[in-house]
Amino acid sequence: MMACGTLLGIGLGPGDPELITLKGLRRLQAAPVVAAFAKAGRTGNAWTIAEPHLLAQQTRLRLEYPFTLEVAVSDPRYHREMNAFYDDCARQLAAHLEAGRDVAVICEGDPFFYGSYMYLHDRLAGRFAAEVVPGITGMSACWTRADAPITHGDDVLTVLPGTLPEAALVERLRVTDAAVFMKVGRNLPRIRAALGQAGMLHRAILVERGSMNGERVTPLADWPADQAVPYFTIVLVPGRQGVR
Amino acid sequence: MMACGTLLGIGLGPGDPELITLKGLRRLQAAPVVAAFAKAGRTGNAWTIAEPHLLAQQTRLRLEYPFTLEVAVSDPRYHREMNAFYDDCARQLAAHLEAGRDVAVICEGDPFFYGSYMYLHDRLAGRFAAEVVPGITGMSACWTRADAPITHGDDVLTVLPGTLPEAALVERLRVTDAAVFMKVGRNLPRIRAALGQAGMLHRAILVERGSMNGERVTPLADWPADQAVPYFTIVLVPGRQGVR
Repeated sequence: MMACGTLLGIGLGPGDPELITLKGLRRLQAAPVVAAFAKAGRTGNAWTIAEPHLLAQQTRLRLEYPFTLEVAVSDPRYHREMNAFYDDCARQLAAHLEAGRDVAVICEGDPFFYGSYMYLHDRLAGRFAAEVVPGITGMSACWTRADAPITHGDDVLTVLPGTLPEAALVERLRVTDAAVFMKVGRNLPRIRAALGQAGMLHRAILVERGSMNGERVTPLADWPADQAVPYFTIVLVPGRQGVR
Repeated sequence: MMACGTLLGIGLGPGDPELITLKGLRRLQAAPVVAAFAKAGRTGNAWTIAEPHLLAQQTRLRLEYPFTLEVAVSDPRYHREMNAFYDDCARQLAAHLEAGRDVAVICEGDPFFYGSYMYLHDRLAGRFAAEVVPGITGMSACWTRADAPITHGDDVLTVLPGTLPEAALVERLRVTDAAVFMKVGRNLPRIRAALGQAGMLHRAILVERGSMNGERVTPLADWPADQAVPYFTIVLVPGRQGVR
């Protein structure tokens, strides 16, 4: 009987193709099948980052999201449709794994940090061998490129999805030294208001496309209130200064 | 006039030498001088991780901490002695930079995430060109190796130094979905008590030496209360489950 393939979750890092790890690259290039989520009609960030590393003989499996617009996680339709979508993706991967082919799922950032890979891992890791290779997170690239050490000494760091209500953001900002806001996009006005209430707006930095082409770093206080930002923009609040 | 060298902060990642990035390796091997902090009488984790990548012609500069015991950050002696130590290290690096030699400071994990490199960066980045290459954090290796996706969807993640008082830990645990405790070591009994008070002990996982030789993953509730753990052990509390 033929052995099944291994499911691999490969962290590609934040955008610069050179920020993949040696291990991630080795495991990626050894896999006959490469899969990644992407929006319909878009190349997809994971495919763009991995492109310089992919080999001609590798089978590419695009997993296209059923939505082209952002649907709120609170909408029951979101969970229903996404579950069906992830089930279908898992079936496609399982067919390759059952045929003895390793499948590398390539992921922006780190697969286990707000990654969609985990929905495949949850569905398949019980049936097949699975291995994850961590990646540099987007937030790490952003604080590096902003020249803003995020935590010193005994600082507390809180990572906040920008989707939370303003009061929830303020409550958490009041008990942290450093903060990172993920999923900024259309949530920027609420994030800005929460930072103002917590007395942290003057320390906040907005980073667009950290480590990618078109990267831009701006103090949040200088950002025009009516100017939109991409969904994957990150807002940083560096912690207290340490030993000087 | 000769151009000065560039100061490089190179994230080596969590321990497995293959978890350095392609960029980190390229920049590291191109530097004529390699520097790292270490305790007197110990090889030092950064040197151990980088060893397979270092070249015979590179000058190695060991920066030895003045303490062999942990001294509390609250002790005034700590700040005084550490400041003098970092000033002295910066002078040693400056001599190489002024002579036109790039200096790569190698750092476990990510240089700007609780890293000592930032004390050199603070002192030198104004005078010399400086560039940081991010690295995989220890916490990322730990949640990967524990097979524990840390955050899904709209989870809040809080990173807590184990050095904080118990009440401060409980206050922050009550307003987070996922948590990572750094600097565990002798603080483990207080961390365990705080997790118990916050009703999270049953979800907590203890990871020793994530991605290194001797790695061990244990549910914290199963860990004997009187058994010591190394300082760089990490305790994880994975977040809520997402779409299923």
